[in-house]
Amino acid sequence: MRARHERLPFDSALYRDLFCDRDTAKLFTDSAEIRAMLLVEGALAKAQGGLGIIPAEAGNAIHRAALEAQIDPGALAGATGENGVSVPALVTAFRAEIGDPEAAHYVHWGTTSQDIIDTALILRLRQALLRIETGISKFCNLLAEHSQVHAQTPMAGRTYGQHATPTSFGAVTANWGQPFLTHLDRLEGLRPRLLTVSLSGAAGTGAALGPDLPELTRALADALGLQTGPAPWHSKRDQIAELASWLTLVTGSCGKLGEDLLRLTQTEIAEIDLGAAGASSTMPQKQNPVGPSVLVALAHHTAALNGAMQGAMLHPHQRDGAAWFTEWLSLPAMIMGAAKAVHLAADLAETMLPNPDRMAANMEGRLGLIHAEALSFALATKMPRPDAQRKIKEFCAEAQAKGTPLPVLFAAAFPEIDTHAATASLGQAPEIARAFALAVTAQAAAKTSA
Amino acid sequence: MRARHERLPFDSALYRDLFCDRDTAKLFTDSAEIRAMLLVEGALAKAQGGLGIIPAEAGNAIHRAALEAQIDPGALAGATGENGVSVPALVTAFRAEIGDPEAAHYVHWGTTSQDIIDTALILRLRQALLRIETGISKFCNLLAEHSQVHAQTPMAGRTYGQHATPTSFGAVTANWGQPFLTHLDRLEGLRPRLLTVSLSGAAGTGAALGPDLPELTRALADALGLQTGPAPWHSKRDQIAELASWLTLVTGSCGKLGEDLLRLTQTEIAEIDLGAAGASSTMPQKQNPVGPSVLVALAHHTAALNGAMQGAMLHPHQRDGAAWFTEWLSLPAMIMGAAKAVHLAADLAETMLPNPDRMAANMEGRLGLIHAEALSFALATKMPRPDAQRKIKEFCAEAQAKGTPLPVLFAAAFPEIDTHAATASLGQAPEIARAFALAVTAQAAAKTSA
Amino acid sequence: MRARHERLPFDSALYRDLFCDRDTAKLFTDSAEIRAMLLVEGALAKAQGGLGIIPAEAGNAIHRAALEAQIDPGALAGATGENGVSVPALVTAFRAEIGDPEAAHYVHWGTTSQDIIDTALILRLRQALLRIETGISKFCNLLAEHSQVHAQTPMAGRTYGQHATPTSFGAVTANWGQPFLTHLDRLEGLRPRLLTVSLSGAAGTGAALGPDLPELTRALADALGLQTGPAPWHSKRDQIAELASWLTLVTGSCGKLGEDLLRLTQTEIAEIDLGAAGASSTMPQKQNPVGPSVLVALAHHTAALNGAMQGAMLHPHQRDGAAWFTEWLSLPAMIMGAAKAVHLAADLAETMLPNPDRMAANMEGRLGLIHAEALSFALATKMPRPDAQRKIKEFCAEAQAKGTPLPVLFAAAFPEIDTHAATASLGQAPEIARAFALAVTAQAAAKTSA
Amino acid sequence: MRARHERLPFDSALYRDLFCDRDTAKLFTDSAEIRAMLLVEGALAKAQGGLGIIPAEAGNAIHRAALEAQIDPGALAGATGENGVSVPALVTAFRAEIGDPEAAHYVHWGTTSQDIIDTALILRLRQALLRIETGISKFCNLLAEHSQVHAQTPMAGRTYGQHATPTSFGAVTANWGQPFLTHLDRLEGLRPRLLTVSLSGAAGTGAALGPDLPELTRALADALGLQTGPAPWHSKRDQIAELASWLTLVTGSCGKLGEDLLRLTQTEIAEIDLGAAGASSTMPQKQNPVGPSVLVALAHHTAALNGAMQGAMLHPHQRDGAAWFTEWLSLPAMIMGAAKAVHLAADLAETMLPNPDRMAANMEGRLGLIHAEALSFALATKMPRPDAQRKIKEFCAEAQAKGTPLPVLFAAAFPEIDTHAATASLGQAPEIARAFALAVTAQAAAKTSA
Repeated sequence: MRARHERLPFDSALYRDLFCDRDTAKLFTDSAEIRAMLLVEGALAKAQGGLGIIPAEAGNAIHRAALEAQIDPGALAGATGENGVSVPALVTAFRAEIGDPEAAHYVHWGTTSQDIIDTALILRLRQALLRIETGISKFCNLLAEHSQVHAQTPMAGRTYGQHATPTSFGAVTANWGQPFLTHLDRLEGLRPRLLTVSLSGAAGTGAALGPDLPELTRALADALGLQTGPAPWHSKRDQIAELASWLTLVTGSCGKLGEDLLRLTQTEIAEIDLGAAGASSTMPQKQNPVGPSVLVALAHHTAALNGAMQGAMLHPHQRDGAAWFTEWLSLPAMIMGAAKAVHLAADLAETMLPNPDRMAANMEGRLGLIHAEALSFALATKMPRPDAQRKIKEFCAEAQAKGTPLPVLFAAAFPEIDTHAATASLGQAPEIARAFALAVTAQAAAKTSA
Repeated sequence: MRARHERLPFDSALYRDLFCDRDTAKLFTDSAEIRAMLLVEGALAKAQGGLGIIPAEAGNAIHRAALEAQIDPGALAGATGENGVSVPALVTAFRAEIGDPEAAHYVHWGTTSQDIIDTALILRLRQALLRIETGISKFCNLLAEHSQVHAQTPMAGRTYGQHATPTSFGAVTANWGQPFLTHLDRLEGLRPRLLTVSLSGAAGTGAALGPDLPELTRALADALGLQTGPAPWHSKRDQIAELASWLTLVTGSCGKLGEDLLRLTQTEIAEIDLGAAGASSTMPQKQNPVGPSVLVALAHHTAALNGAMQGAMLHPHQRDGAAWFTEWLSLPAMIMGAAKAVHLAADLAETMLPNPDRMAANMEGRLGLIHAEALSFALATKMPRPDAQRKIKEFCAEAQAKGTPLPVLFAAAFPEIDTHAATASLGQAPEIARAFALAVTAQAAAKTSA
Repeated sequence: MRARHERLPFDSALYRDLFCDRDTAKLFTDSAEIRAMLLVEGALAKAQGGLGIIPAEAGNAIHRAALEAQIDPGALAGATGENGVSVPALVTAFRAEIGDPEAAHYVHWGTTSQDIIDTALILRLRQALLRIETGISKFCNLLAEHSQVHAQTPMAGRTYGQHATPTSFGAVTANWGQPFLTHLDRLEGLRPRLLTVSLSGAAGTGAALGPDLPELTRALADALGLQTGPAPWHSKRDQIAELASWLTLVTGSCGKLGEDLLRLTQTEIAEIDLGAAGASSTMPQKQNPVGPSVLVALAHHTAALNGAMQGAMLHPHQRDGAAWFTEWLSLPAMIMGAAKAVHLAADLAETMLPNPDRMAANMEGRLGLIHAEALSFALATKMPRPDAQRKIKEFCAEAQAKGTPLPVLFAAAFPEIDTHAATASLGQAPEIARAFALAVTAQAAAKTSA
Repeated sequence: MRARHERLPFDSALYRDLFCDRDTAKLFTDSAEIRAMLLVEGALAKAQGGLGIIPAEAGNAIHRAALEAQIDPGALAGATGENGVSVPALVTAFRAEIGDPEAAHYVHWGTTSQDIIDTALILRLRQALLRIETGISKFCNLLAEHSQVHAQTPMAGRTYGQHATPTSFGAVTANWGQPFLTHLDRLEGLRPRLLTVSLSGAAGTGAALGPDLPELTRALADALGLQTGPAPWHSKRDQIAELASWLTLVTGSCGKLGEDLLRLTQTEIAEIDLGAAGASSTMPQKQNPVGPSVLVALAHHTAALNGAMQGAMLHPHQRDGAAWFTEWLSLPAMIMGAAKAVHLAADLAETMLPNPDRMAANMEGRLGLIHAEALSFALATKMPRPDAQRKIKEFCAEAQAKGTPLPVLFAAAFPEIDTHAATASLGQAPEIARAFALAVTAQAAAKTSA
């Protein structure tokens, strides 16, 4: 009987719809890991056969067997617990599955556990990055639409939680989306550094892999659809740490969206309706912003794990178990968290309903104090700006004392100034919104043509 | 068919013997969580029945049903994904399982999801802390034996990785164990603050729980074997953050053991043989210190997650999804990591074999330079200490230039000083070792008599 | 000319009123550090003289000189850069300042840099903890007053940023203050573990300190007003890491206050006026919640540094430069941040003005939906609670569709139920508020009598 | 009198040679910050004058005054403490310094504090990045030389602290240096994203900056030698967080060097002599690896602060004090830490002396077990590799039991195999070393020609 062992939020049946992107998660199961390792062993043997490092027939037999072998993770657990790595037990189990005993002993020829484990990780990271990229693109497209539609929808700009000056909802959605366009650029820079094979043998010199190591590495990389890197990376983990940084940036930007949505859905603000919201076990009226809360939690979780990943760069000598295990404990949750975050962000962008009436009401409902800066500049056409600022400050106080809107007071005092023009301006907000929408289209087009 | 979803090291079949303490892990499965929540709902209903808040029969029926209900986690996943919390769906499913429909509607009376989830967490934390405590005690007892046996086994004391002055292996093991005695003291302080029920209703005022809330809370606490706290803790998370801090301290002390073992098992030092060590997939001679590496990795992982937990203290208003979810994502891994760490530390303490010959050889093999301080103090009986230090510094240089041991040079130059006495002293190391052994016994005795 | 070198927020002249508690900061200047180290050297020499370990006269002379010596930090910089520790250069400079050359060579007898540096740190931590404690007590007293006065001031309880059920402002302030009472309890547990001398010599065995080390340690501790610990702590850093944890808890609780104040001062909510608020360089109307923002920033900064401190528990062998330096880089900022946070929290508690009218208006202004739970329980006296919940959910929808308050709809449908009683209840909020006020008084009284 | 307020390691006179790169640190003094802010105000006014937004004469007068104004940081402290930002007080003080009162009121026209502070930060980051880049280049050049010279210097490759297979010292230095070449590539990607002006006014729409904002932004960027970015970045902080990530990567790679040097200078290993090392206050023989310890400590410190920086990406709305202040508290220390780390790494690379004899002795001194893999592959030419591995494992045991070197046992058993050839191979280590040296030259050349 197989024991149930769902202990962490990403693995839990109970929480899987809350925290987990299933398409990504299935890349990080035990069986996916074993499959990927076998794929690497198979491709390596075939490449070694092709270059005459091992008998070509053995290489082919191993390659074929690797595609078909079924190895039970639980059967490797004991040896993995002892050795720290699963590969010795995996190699033994795999050899036993290969019909041809002559061929079997050429499995894992000249390589080392870390080559297999790290390359197998890269294979799955490649898939996971595609999945994250898809989520980002979907999210950007949805935000671009909001930005286009709401380029001129007035909304209170807020700083320190206080009304500042007017902006537009389209500018706000552009502000949410803009970093993701840059994240995609960063991903383009990151990919060739990250998606490389590891093939450096016991201590990074590839001694047992023979003199044709560069050719062999290229052949293995080609077979797996990966790159060759500039140097062995058993203990050179900058590109792994860079991936962790990128995942942190991505979830951080999702978290910023989450924080804003949590604020914009507050009972007193209510400028956005999420479309879908969570019910309470006891309060019939409650509609909880569950999705945005998850975005924020995933951002904090990912950033925390990133700390461990960055520390794991201090990877002593040619290999270190502690540093490497530290990566194992953190990276899968970061990848899964980032994938969930971007797809959840896209879902929220799809279902959320901005409420322009509420935006307008909130903005104008505070005695129009949000127009103080605009009016001070309008007034600065008639007096030095410091005087204008002081004057407007007095009007603000008067507005609050009397309950008379600031623009009304202003218009009464300075009928010669066009109060309406001053208070209607959204500055560059519409341009900012449209520029983002355009940039999304342009980036997508560049990608298609590339 | 139930999909396999082991995606993280603590849940993996492959890695379960490497990173996971099974006794602790089973407290954090979906089914254990559901069981604990039902236990709380049942105990609450019974207590409410006892106080006449709901009909006594209904309370008893709910309590009985809670002990028997079997609820499939997967069936709650969809609603949990929407609501953020599993309780609304759980309550619905549980009501359906109760034979008596009259009774069923008294389930979850006046309480809120967070009361149930948090109290159910505390029930499992209580068990987990016992398990960790057991591991610490076992570890301390084993170290106490080493300290007793090796109180006078000479060994190089090392600072900055350099030989400093002699110490004893027993003092080293005492130094490993001492913090754990204090961790047990800290645990005594922490427990009553942590192990309390949560029963405060929708927004912390217990409004729907009725005026007898203090009595009800006490009754629930008694039924569950928990305490009542000083105040609602829906968004007052200091005791949860304190637990996270304690787990971090515990794994940190285990990590210190790990770091030392990694150094003491280095090929060139080899003062400790781990008894069990990991094999390589390609190097026949390798015996890798897997256990110590795991200790270090768990320490870094736990400390990283602790960052998220501490941040989750900034829990807005009366409840916040983001802060609460952040705890969910981090705390189980911290608990499981700490439990694994202390039990692995105990295993290492049990199987490790110190090598006194090698300790002596390492210490004396470097031209006896480790005795420089002792000889400088011996010499300071005859001249001002700064002069003595300068003199010994010259001897050190001479020793290295000529390959003659420092004590030999010293004895030749100062035959009137007892060189042997100076170089044989271990200072207070034996006393330090024995004091620890005694303290372990004393603490155990105090506990038994308490 | 001495270059100006204020580079970090805590040291900046520009930012000192924003981030820095001056009384604490002056404990962490170079000159305060040198003074404390000299104090330790002086007290040690005197104690050694008293026990006959060094000539009594030399001990007294060193002790006197230590009180008067003026040593320029900059003059020690070069040697400190080389040695990693300032003590070798300090000892040399100090010896030169002692008139009596016979006495001078007994300075720093048998001890090691770490003993001096760590004990000097503890002396300053003792002062800093008193300063933090004072801030906490002041804060608690001020909150207790709010809790007493506003025990029954109705206010919306909010979960996930949404109106949940009514609470009182006094319960909110109690919720802010309660953790600090526990922090004071924790501090009582922490102090004896932390405030101990370090006196263990080169590699923790005190070899050069002689056989009377226990007596000497006690004498030094008495002279400095510190405790003796259970064991050498050169590389046993649990109590330092525990201090870091405590500081993180304290700033975390301050950050929770900050987050709540940021929400309660939002333009649309405005339930609290901070009394003092920040001006904008361009927006005449702005009143920025600067203080709460600082609390949140300090909480995040302290929690981040705590990660490094916890990692520094993995302190190899008998001393490790890297781990120790890691503490140096982080701990002062944590202490200063915590001290600023609690005193700023007290200032905010002193100057903030709750606005009960606004609280009431916000609460009732949303169609009375906040009373949904209370009304569902009132209705559950007449029908099964699930039915009552469903019914109230329909009323909520109707209220929003028609713009008619929920209580009005309810009262019309169920005239036989006392709608007013149901909606007026604050549950246990008043009791929670008053219990906190009482606890503050009780804790203060217990302290005075202790 | 100005109080001394050096409280943190980077600002301390005492510790400045240990932790601080002075050239970088002087960019982060109060006065450098004020100077940079004035530079931005001056350049903005001039650009606004040039575009006719303000009178050209006023623009010129402000620009001139900005170059000359001397403003005392301490005089701004009080207002900065209240406002959270220094700009309101700075603008007031600066206006007072401008002779021409007509011009003075055009200071800070249409902009906001954050534009000034953030752009002034970028100006200094530009300088700091150049300084860090210089350090990296110097470090790479020095390592390239080691790699060239020691391409074939045999050295034990170590995994898990255990001898694995032979490598060369040149391959080790290549492994240290390789990530830095990639860091330089990353920097090229990062710079245009980071080094942009901020000019978006009160709430990111630039409303008061007028319709010519794009032209004005370009003019300001040109005047300051910066870029224009794709969008306002008041609350879009991905490029700031990306900088923090990069600094963390850089210090992480320095920390890896530090960890390796700490191991290679251990008393028992001693394969590298640092040239400069720290003295002990009590142990005459000690030579402490201070520099490597500092590298490790800076790596941990920087990684910890990075956690806060990543969290600050969750920057609500159009500006948030808490998130922004969090950056202020962390970023300067990260920049200064990274600059110190790379320059210290370069110093270590310059002064360190590898000891090839000791490397050889360490490698061969352990009964030649390090050759086990090579011999197993040599033997696999004669039997299936699993059998060969088993056989060699037996030889390893025999070697340890008898004290006879493994190669001797092997040669005796298999005289027909060339034992010497098998044990002499360094695999690809020499090629790895030389490839790095070549890459350094190539990258430098590419840069020069660019």
